[in-house]
Amino acid sequence: MPQPGQALVRLREHLHQTRLLGSISSALYYDQNTVMPPAGADWRGKQLSLLASQLHERQSSETYTGLVAAAEAELDHSAPASTRRNLQLLRQELERQRSLDPQLVARLAVAQSRGNAVWQEARRSNDFAVFAPALEELLQLRREQAAQLAPIEPAGRSPWEILAQPFEPDVSKDRLQELFTPLSEGIPPLLERVRASPPAAAAGPSAPAAAIPEELQETLCAELLDSWGYDPSRCQRSRSAHPFSCTLGPADYRITSRVVPDQPFSAFLATAHEWGHSLYEQGLPRGDDHYFPWPLGEATSMGVHESQSLFWECRVARSQAFASRWHTRFSGALGSDPWGGSHSFWRGLNPMRPGLIRVEADELTYGLHIVLRFELELALVEQGLPVSELPEQWNRRMGELLGIRPQRDAEGCLQDIHWAEGLFGYFPSYALGHLISAQLAESMERQLGPIETAVGAGEESRLQRWLAENVWPLGRSVNGEELVAQVTGAPLSASPFLRYLSGKVDRLLETP
Amino acid sequence: MPQPGQALVRLREHLHQTRLLGSISSALYYDQNTVMPPAGADWRGKQLSLLASQLHERQSSETYTGLVAAAEAELDHSAPASTRRNLQLLRQELERQRSLDPQLVARLAVAQSRGNAVWQEARRSNDFAVFAPALEELLQLRREQAAQLAPIEPAGRSPWEILAQPFEPDVSKDRLQELFTPLSEGIPPLLERVRASPPAAAAGPSAPAAAIPEELQETLCAELLDSWGYDPSRCQRSRSAHPFSCTLGPADYRITSRVVPDQPFSAFLATAHEWGHSLYEQGLPRGDDHYFPWPLGEATSMGVHESQSLFWECRVARSQAFASRWHTRFSGALGSDPWGGSHSFWRGLNPMRPGLIRVEADELTYGLHIVLRFELELALVEQGLPVSELPEQWNRRMGELLGIRPQRDAEGCLQDIHWAEGLFGYFPSYALGHLISAQLAESMERQLGPIETAVGAGEESRLQRWLAENVWPLGRSVNGEELVAQVTGAPLSASPFLRYLSGKVDRLLETP
Repeated sequence: MPQPGQALVRLREHLHQTRLLGSISSALYYDQNTVMPPAGADWRGKQLSLLASQLHERQSSETYTGLVAAAEAELDHSAPASTRRNLQLLRQELERQRSLDPQLVARLAVAQSRGNAVWQEARRSNDFAVFAPALEELLQLRREQAAQLAPIEPAGRSPWEILAQPFEPDVSKDRLQELFTPLSEGIPPLLERVRASPPAAAAGPSAPAAAIPEELQETLCAELLDSWGYDPSRCQRSRSAHPFSCTLGPADYRITSRVVPDQPFSAFLATAHEWGHSLYEQGLPRGDDHYFPWPLGEATSMGVHESQSLFWECRVARSQAFASRWHTRFSGALGSDPWGGSHSFWRGLNPMRPGLIRVEADELTYGLHIVLRFELELALVEQGLPVSELPEQWNRRMGELLGIRPQRDAEGCLQDIHWAEGLFGYFPSYALGHLISAQLAESMERQLGPIETAVGAGEESRLQRWLAENVWPLGRSVNGEELVAQVTGAPLSASPFLRYLSGKVDRLLETP
Repeated sequence: MPQPGQALVRLREHLHQTRLLGSISSALYYDQNTVMPPAGADWRGKQLSLLASQLHERQSSETYTGLVAAAEAELDHSAPASTRRNLQLLRQELERQRSLDPQLVARLAVAQSRGNAVWQEARRSNDFAVFAPALEELLQLRREQAAQLAPIEPAGRSPWEILAQPFEPDVSKDRLQELFTPLSEGIPPLLERVRASPPAAAAGPSAPAAAIPEELQETLCAELLDSWGYDPSRCQRSRSAHPFSCTLGPADYRITSRVVPDQPFSAFLATAHEWGHSLYEQGLPRGDDHYFPWPLGEATSMGVHESQSLFWECRVARSQAFASRWHTRFSGALGSDPWGGSHSFWRGLNPMRPGLIRVEADELTYGLHIVLRFELELALVEQGLPVSELPEQWNRRMGELLGIRPQRDAEGCLQDIHWAEGLFGYFPSYALGHLISAQLAESMERQLGPIETAVGAGEESRLQRWLAENVWPLGRSVNGEELVAQVTGAPLSASPFLRYLSGKVDRLLETP
């Protein structure tokens, strides 16, 4: 095997330090969201901003540009494909960083900060007009940014597509339409079946709202993680206002959750979800010199990341076999069974009813919330939808897709923070996660047999091993779609997810 | 008031960023010692080392040197004294940083790391010979460093004194001898009186070892802090293997403690101690532009810092009045009174018996442990004591001072980590803290009346206000000795501490 050239060694050293700085930022973020006292926020903001400017400098400086160019120049026919791929990914990111106009970046930072503040106010007062000018400005600035980035993007990429690249590399809106149309066509009939069923079977508001004491929820979350291979020598779990998972170093993984009053499964399912993210991070390739700190050792897309969290949350923790096992633990720990049996406990884990709020949506309706946002942000960014018409369009489309209409914009187009921070192109990854998880799960089942069987036997470690062998080590050697094609032998499609949903609805509506 | 000149403004900006970097380091340290999983240590070490090299660069670079020189050149007759003092302190520290030989610093880092590892091994196997060569090397390197620093130090400073400056600015060994001799003469007779008293009165091993459940200890610590003005919007409390306090930003203070099995008051007293450190940090001057991020806004010495922690631990939390109030809370929370009354509870808070281990020493004997170390490190650094004779000298002097002799070096000269890390000149600050605390307390009592009376009335906030008005705002405008002279009107002396000890022994030996 040829030795890496000198330029490659120097480049690696540079990337290593960049990783150190990036992970210091993550450590500060973790502290901020778990234990930092509120008055520390101002200084913490300054610390993070200092690190951000150091990071930007390291990722766009002449020095770094020279290192990349030298490594590229050093490439010869004997260079391994992994080196080529690493340099290709670094070059892409470098061009992106260097074509960002610092003045525009600064104007965006101001607009994002203002957008966030104004959005908070608009949501509080349920007054879209308060937010509209800020949204208009953010759209304008992002359009400008897309135009600046256009020359470095492959020909024909649209503004929205250019903005979506960092979240989902190589994504196109046509492809998303192709993937999402089956959702907007296939899910409403399923929803209709649930609606038409007797209330008890639908596990709707009539399901018992078991009150599980906070301490007990914490214990159950800890037990869940223990049973899924949580290793306290490499992992740490805390509480935070919003659950998240983050990586602080190559052997330092953190996850958080929080107990929500009147939502007995919220902390438990969020723990499963975040642990899925963390397992992916823990399983990324680090084994040889072509990975960490190189791009090949990174997560490939938001959609793939989300597929891993959704797999553990939805395919495992919300499965019937899992509910059956854990119903016993929950009831035992509570000293009573407020659900009246494991089938009803399982229904409690799987509410299926349309709601107005995305973050509270169930597996069945979640995708529709995304379709709505994808269509509308496309319309806003590049199809000329005036900002002033957003509430009306939101409410209309919500009615078509989910059969319900918000009475207040606070529960409609003002509910998410993403646009207020100028994030366009981010939402689709959430739905892609469902699709990818379902398609991977079908392949997994072809090889391992039904997931329900493995979970029923308490053999989640088999499922984990399959992901550890087939999915996680791919890193950024492939993009999200390529990953699915490579692992499952078929292009990504909505069919596995719709088949899964349909089967689940069938079983949920059955009388136990 | 004259406006600060341009050079001063640029220098301030530089210092501000240096503070940001330093506080990022503190945040990583805090995380490392509270929640970081063990496997994260390797990467964390690399993060800290990156920050350390950035900090060193910022504090010794040509750019920084130029900024300081420009600010000095800008000084004219109209410059306020605070500006002069700030520049004087910055110049001192800059000269120190610049005269450090990078090669020697690197050799020291290796020797410290090796020293630590070898010391762990020597302590485990109780074999001083394993540690001796590493100690010899560390002494040699530190002597070299002192020689390199000598040209920038005021004439006539000895090697040990040069090494001690960072901990206790302007300290001299003659002055320490003067302050410590009364301790080595005055404490043994007090110890003799305790020894001669009946065992029950001495609150020795016969005191009841109340078992206080961990949760309850945590609650009592939280109550203690609440009663002393702990503000959760600016402070945060965690657990760690060793208690510490640290400042993460101008409005972000952290303290930690830990519950020690069979030591019912350990967490409680450590909380009082660390809170004292934190109060000092919280009270340092930040109000105007001459302080934060300037040196004037910093703690002035280790001894003064320790005086603040010892004040709250010993003068307040170990006081009779405090014991009387908290005996009720402890017993109430426990649902029983294993002490059999508040006098015995107070004795439990104030064990008075000689032991071999410094970190377990009581108020009476602590100073003697320091005298021993001060004498021996002086002998090692600059009086030609061969390393091989250290154990024998340690044991002999321990016998003279405390009347007990270690049977094993692990409980003797191998017990502390300081020398293993090449820290010489650090120990005296611990004893200075007792002396300074006692002398400040006498002044406080002259103005406010007896501390016992204030504590008995639950009016610790009056004591705190006195410190907040008289001590904390001084920052580095004065060194430790100057601070004492300015606040108490008299030079620092051991007398107040000895008077305090003598009175306390009297009352502890009284039959209640």
